[in-house]
Amino acid sequence: MISDKMKALVEQSSVIRAMFEEGKNMAKLYGAENVFDFSLGNPSVNPPAQIKEAINYVVNEEDENLVHGYMNNSGYEDVRKAVAASLNSKFGTNFSYENILMTVGAAGGLNVIFKTLLNPGDEVVAFAPFFGEYRNYVSNFDGKLVVVAPDTKTFMPDMEGLREAITKKTKIVLINTPNNPTGVIYGDATLKELAKVLDEKSKEIGEPIYLIADEPYRELAYDGVEVPYVTKYYANTIVGYSYSKSLSLPGERIGYLVIPSEITGSKEIISAAGVANRILGFVNAPSLIQRVVGRCLDVQVDVDIYNRNRELLYNSLTEYGYECVKPQGAFYLFVKSFDMDDKEFVAMAKKKNILVVPGSSFGCPGYVRIAYCVDYDMIKRSLKGFEELARECNK
Amino acid sequence: MISDKMKALVEQSSVIRAMFEEGKNMAKLYGAENVFDFSLGNPSVNPPAQIKEAINYVVNEEDENLVHGYMNNSGYEDVRKAVAASLNSKFGTNFSYENILMTVGAAGGLNVIFKTLLNPGDEVVAFAPFFGEYRNYVSNFDGKLVVVAPDTKTFMPDMEGLREAITKKTKIVLINTPNNPTGVIYGDATLKELAKVLDEKSKEIGEPIYLIADEPYRELAYDGVEVPYVTKYYANTIVGYSYSKSLSLPGERIGYLVIPSEITGSKEIISAAGVANRILGFVNAPSLIQRVVGRCLDVQVDVDIYNRNRELLYNSLTEYGYECVKPQGAFYLFVKSFDMDDKEFVAMAKKKNILVVPGSSFGCPGYVRIAYCVDYDMIKRSLKGFEELARECNK
Repeated sequence: MISDKMKALVEQSSVIRAMFEEGKNMAKLYGAENVFDFSLGNPSVNPPAQIKEAINYVVNEEDENLVHGYMNNSGYEDVRKAVAASLNSKFGTNFSYENILMTVGAAGGLNVIFKTLLNPGDEVVAFAPFFGEYRNYVSNFDGKLVVVAPDTKTFMPDMEGLREAITKKTKIVLINTPNNPTGVIYGDATLKELAKVLDEKSKEIGEPIYLIADEPYRELAYDGVEVPYVTKYYANTIVGYSYSKSLSLPGERIGYLVIPSEITGSKEIISAAGVANRILGFVNAPSLIQRVVGRCLDVQVDVDIYNRNRELLYNSLTEYGYECVKPQGAFYLFVKSFDMDDKEFVAMAKKKNILVVPGSSFGCPGYVRIAYCVDYDMIKRSLKGFEELARECNK
Repeated sequence: MISDKMKALVEQSSVIRAMFEEGKNMAKLYGAENVFDFSLGNPSVNPPAQIKEAINYVVNEEDENLVHGYMNNSGYEDVRKAVAASLNSKFGTNFSYENILMTVGAAGGLNVIFKTLLNPGDEVVAFAPFFGEYRNYVSNFDGKLVVVAPDTKTFMPDMEGLREAITKKTKIVLINTPNNPTGVIYGDATLKELAKVLDEKSKEIGEPIYLIADEPYRELAYDGVEVPYVTKYYANTIVGYSYSKSLSLPGERIGYLVIPSEITGSKEIISAAGVANRILGFVNAPSLIQRVVGRCLDVQVDVDIYNRNRELLYNSLTEYGYECVKPQGAFYLFVKSFDMDDKEFVAMAKKKNILVVPGSSFGCPGYVRIAYCVDYDMIKRSLKGFEELARECNK
């Protein structure tokens, strides 16, 4: 009864759903404290205290019809002004409120900009490993996701691979830094090189290639590593942002797109993106929480908690013989499944009550993603299992 | 630079945007108190007091990671249970939480169910006049909106027209009662007849035709008129609901789909709709406000305020010679633009600082929609202009 497109999607999705169901059953069978669920990117750190304060203020002090009513499809003007001002002060950019479109999370933002830009058959280039939902978002608009094979030594973007992947049909190159699932951050030199390739290739194909920077993990960086602002490297850059991780609000569905005035066709794209936000059924980003994040722009979750998890898990796993690039950001380790098929490794891990996601879900088989946005003590309790698993895999 | 589809959509949209911009300019020129904006369906009545109480409770008493975190893509199980129980007690239905999918408003819900059901070229039948966004929602999935011409005497669905509109390609018939823009409510006899036609036609084409009931105005009914629950008339019914009007929360983007177990392919559709909710980028309905509406299921805005507006405006306009079916629900009057083109009438009204929407935006030229979800005193101040307008149109 369902559409042909959905048939295929439901089949793919049921693999992951089956894992979650199994996790629940395992918790019942063995006790929740004996199950080690590293599968989900659901932040374990509480939102900053200012979030509760801001909700209480907005709900009890602001006008109800303003707080819960319709506003411009692009968001409240005062909130968009505050977001622009905050970006300008942090990154030396020069955005006005018109460059900011409040969205239903980064997922909403990416769908809005893909709807805005993609004709059927247009190509979106992404570097493996990548967040698996990108494939679905591109397919929503009959675009084609073109994948650049991973550089598994560094997990940094392969520029030669990028050159080869770009065709006359390329409309968008999509990056995600700090990266899910690897935790790598693209530094100054990488972004300069990327911009150079895109400038050359745009000239060669005679059409602008838009660089879309998906940045839900921007604020989660460790060891003082800087996350450069991508619009400063390449003129045709659009940024997608989410407060899901930086403020631990994933359920609230709140983020924004930055569409700078410098990009080719900026006015047309800004106007079309507002319309796309409406007709895709988002209509606008949720109103109350828009007003709340507008009051919490210089606030973020306590990254030290994730850092402590990162150190414990990275140090322990590498000691046990796991191979892994040490993540500089986000809250994932992307670990080699030794010489095994990643799905087989996932199945073996499950026997130790350890739940992780196969790398093939991120376009990178032979690896698994371990989400460490979890309780520190759960990591400690899981270590014995990881150690045994390493021994068994290397028999 | 934007996609071909969006080009056409931006052009259409700019007509309405131009009207809103003109409204703002008019307020500056003539003073806000001298501009009579009846163009928007933005509720003027405050949310019930229980909303503020519920937000304060959920934010200050419930666990933060629960309130703001990810949950099942279909929504919190406890909220879905509460919604199902509330429907069962009101309408004698027999839904479980699995039949309820929390959505980003009714707009999100309709997009989810269209994504779930429609193959390119599939037809969705709607009765004119209809909410103009339906056209865009169907087009998002390359479906075709087939319009049954309006019965302008009663604005009730034309069953003969429906029979003629249904083809082998018909997958969905979409109704909206209480209706935007006419305010009519489909009663018992109408729904029985509709069910009969759909049963016959489903048999004839050999495929189930799904009836989708878009019900954001369900709670806004006047004079004690009952709004029958559509699932009780036709087995293959799916309901789309929104709290935008019943709780005055349009900015919050919160509603739900009811996908009954009785419909053909129910399990497959329920599962696919959850996936569609995720991959369209909604991911889930906003979390805090899900928990809030879950505590306010037996609450609604004060409909008497809208009723007072309805009586004043309907009685005054008909006295001035306007023709209009008296609305039984929602908060719109759908008024004949005398013998004039509706767009011309809208332009003449604008000269009286009265803003209304042409019927052609609802697939029904020769009429205009007047939204009376506005301040009572604004209606009073506008009456002189409506009276002059009637005289000028009938010269």
